[in-house]
Amino acid sequence: MNSDHEKPDILITGGTLLTMAPPGRIMDNPVIGIRDGKILFVQQGPPSLSRSMTAREIVDASGCIVMPGLVNVHSHLAMTCFRGLADDLPLMTWLNDHIFPAEAKFIDRKTVYAGAMLAIAEMILSGTTTFCDGYFFEGEVGRAAIATGMRGVIAQGFIDFPTPDRPGRSEQAAIAERFVERWRDRSPLVTPSLFCHSAYTCSPETLQTVKAAARRTGVSFQIHLAETREEVRLLRERYGRKPVQHLRDLDLLDENTIAAHCIWLGGEELDLLAEGRVKVAHDPESNMKLGAGVAPVPEMLRRGIDVGLGTDGCASNNDLDLFGEMGMAAKLHKVFSGDPTALPAERVVEMATIGGARVLGMADRIGSIAPGKEADIILVDIRKPHLTPLYHPFSHLVYAARGADVATSIIGGRIVMKDRCLLQIDLAAVMEEVRRIADRIREAGFHHKADPL
Amino acid sequence: MNSDHEKPDILITGGTLLTMAPPGRIMDNPVIGIRDGKILFVQQGPPSLSRSMTAREIVDASGCIVMPGLVNVHSHLAMTCFRGLADDLPLMTWLNDHIFPAEAKFIDRKTVYAGAMLAIAEMILSGTTTFCDGYFFEGEVGRAAIATGMRGVIAQGFIDFPTPDRPGRSEQAAIAERFVERWRDRSPLVTPSLFCHSAYTCSPETLQTVKAAARRTGVSFQIHLAETREEVRLLRERYGRKPVQHLRDLDLLDENTIAAHCIWLGGEELDLLAEGRVKVAHDPESNMKLGAGVAPVPEMLRRGIDVGLGTDGCASNNDLDLFGEMGMAAKLHKVFSGDPTALPAERVVEMATIGGARVLGMADRIGSIAPGKEADIILVDIRKPHLTPLYHPFSHLVYAARGADVATSIIGGRIVMKDRCLLQIDLAAVMEEVRRIADRIREAGFHHKADPL
Repeated sequence: MNSDHEKPDILITGGTLLTMAPPGRIMDNPVIGIRDGKILFVQQGPPSLSRSMTAREIVDASGCIVMPGLVNVHSHLAMTCFRGLADDLPLMTWLNDHIFPAEAKFIDRKTVYAGAMLAIAEMILSGTTTFCDGYFFEGEVGRAAIATGMRGVIAQGFIDFPTPDRPGRSEQAAIAERFVERWRDRSPLVTPSLFCHSAYTCSPETLQTVKAAARRTGVSFQIHLAETREEVRLLRERYGRKPVQHLRDLDLLDENTIAAHCIWLGGEELDLLAEGRVKVAHDPESNMKLGAGVAPVPEMLRRGIDVGLGTDGCASNNDLDLFGEMGMAAKLHKVFSGDPTALPAERVVEMATIGGARVLGMADRIGSIAPGKEADIILVDIRKPHLTPLYHPFSHLVYAARGADVATSIIGGRIVMKDRCLLQIDLAAVMEEVRRIADRIREAGFHHKADPL
Repeated sequence: MNSDHEKPDILITGGTLLTMAPPGRIMDNPVIGIRDGKILFVQQGPPSLSRSMTAREIVDASGCIVMPGLVNVHSHLAMTCFRGLADDLPLMTWLNDHIFPAEAKFIDRKTVYAGAMLAIAEMILSGTTTFCDGYFFEGEVGRAAIATGMRGVIAQGFIDFPTPDRPGRSEQAAIAERFVERWRDRSPLVTPSLFCHSAYTCSPETLQTVKAAARRTGVSFQIHLAETREEVRLLRERYGRKPVQHLRDLDLLDENTIAAHCIWLGGEELDLLAEGRVKVAHDPESNMKLGAGVAPVPEMLRRGIDVGLGTDGCASNNDLDLFGEMGMAAKLHKVFSGDPTALPAERVVEMATIGGARVLGMADRIGSIAPGKEADIILVDIRKPHLTPLYHPFSHLVYAARGADVATSIIGGRIVMKDRCLLQIDLAAVMEEVRRIADRIREAGFHHKADPL
């Protein structure tokens, strides 16, 4: 195993491993070998086994849960610049009077890059190793991923009103294809994708043009779907259709479509999503904070729909901690259904790892710990009072752990965080840059004043 | 101000102060003087002001939010021993087949003390400075509070079946009064109280006996109320009454009664609670995880009912982080009502501080930062990526911060945590003690095996 040509770059030894790959999902005292960015082998101890091996770096996982890095299937990274700018407002007021105007005025290449860098720092510090983003100036998000060693799906955004990166609606197909071609083989860390904001902000023509470009270039197509009652009302008025029916009629439903939110839909529409093998991004904290509603996730899972967890952007959450989303998903669906057995802990961890990988079409590369997969691995330190004692690792991950418990993170075989220190990011500079952007936003009067109680 | 006889023991300087006491709840660059455990003065900078003062200890709060310590109005500290023992089960299975039997077998003086010590460590590390507990062997919880410098309300528990600390139902009045007398003036940190588990596990006679003892001794009376539909059904069967009506008929409703949960009640019952000036402990995470339901908190607040936040015990949450409860309360009531303006951030922080103090009848001593009050103060370090940038401090506390962001904690003028280090607790020993208890529980076969997915 450990002959010279197969000598691992990194060995992870000890702790409790959750592979998220059947069979035998839990392994005590594992030894994991990593080489050339990939997982070379996964073996059960004894601890003496690892002592007979050598590697460039040995990572001691004693006292830790070792698991695949988390996969955030829906986010808008640059919106860290707007974190906490406007809360506790009616959804359309929040969007039309605060977020859209702030984006029109302040979103440019520089702010997208700065916001994405801050988001990536926060995500690594809370255990995420792959994000999926949709926004404007999306190339800047790709640059930030490469600069930090983060893995990401970057989706160029389309919407029918003028955006900071495109004053008109012209040449959508060419822009979409150029974006994909530019990013297709640029880095093993970055996967291009295309994103239409929604069926109420994009015309049928825009939706079909962008989806066609996605099909031609073989990338995923993302869209916000059935997020609010207002969206359902608007689409009924304009097209006489429910949201999912509308997308079906436009031939947008297939296994490379990722639909975010999916709250206001009935059984017939869920059947359409299942038949089309459409993937779903579930964003419980954002849905709750905006008062949007509760997605019927247990019904989706019963139909075999792949569901992953997302944070959404920082203006509606207001953090990027997937541990928070795991706890929220597990608890929200219990109280909403009145069934405390709904979404058990292990199923939720699955959604945040291999389930998310399936949503992104990357389950052959990420989402579990098995030989041949990318070495995207996190160590969660459970030697903490709030994680003591330990009866079930899955329970702690969902009901007690927080992003801040993640000690070490490896992405593509590169250690990006060790003992809570980010190794590829100048954190002070990244925070200072976004503080300066926030100063400009505040000075321009975009700062929503909360009413006194 | 700074003459010798009024020289403060501690000065806190800098940062952003949330006093939670009107008017002017937000103050930049404050200087807070502490002497003999109490707040001596609160002044607005300039920074030069503090340089002219002296004190035994200067606490630099630059980059921090300075605020009253959080008040956890409902918990069962010793249940840290059962953290994650049994999850994702129907409520009555969880209670009758797991929790009650585990308590019968493993709860004794030693395990209550060990579990309470672990709980207090976790609570201090997540910003709580006052807890309210109800359990058995409650004197051990009082001892743990004194040993750690934590502030607590300790309520001896009563229930009609045999408990580890009382094999029969005899002498309830004498036991209750003896408990209160023993703890009445023992320490400024500890306030005695009495706790009946519920109206479905305590007879009308038990409820009235214990409430009478509480009235005679002038302490608060706590009870779980209207937590589940099953409770409502049982009480209707037995007494032909709704839960609140039942307590009203037994004359248990007054301003010294603290009712936990209060989920399954209608407008008429809310009116009864408001008229009786009954206090409510809201425990959103526990209610969600057990699938119990959603308490009508906005309706309570509209009626002027005092509502505080609680974590409940670690077997149903599974942590004691009130920051999690703040975020959960803010989001849960938005999605449940469909109104994103429900429970705005500032109102939630109020519930977790001065609101909780009102619930415990301690608003004259704790819950806000003002001269004469106990010096129970926390510093939340906001120089973190997930708390950058800062537009509104209340927003960050509720929607982005976590317990792990609390850097320093002062209780009764004593620094109990500094830069995340607990100063009064041997954390390794406390965790090891509970791990040993968990080993015994696991060996006895009390470890619920989750079904494979």
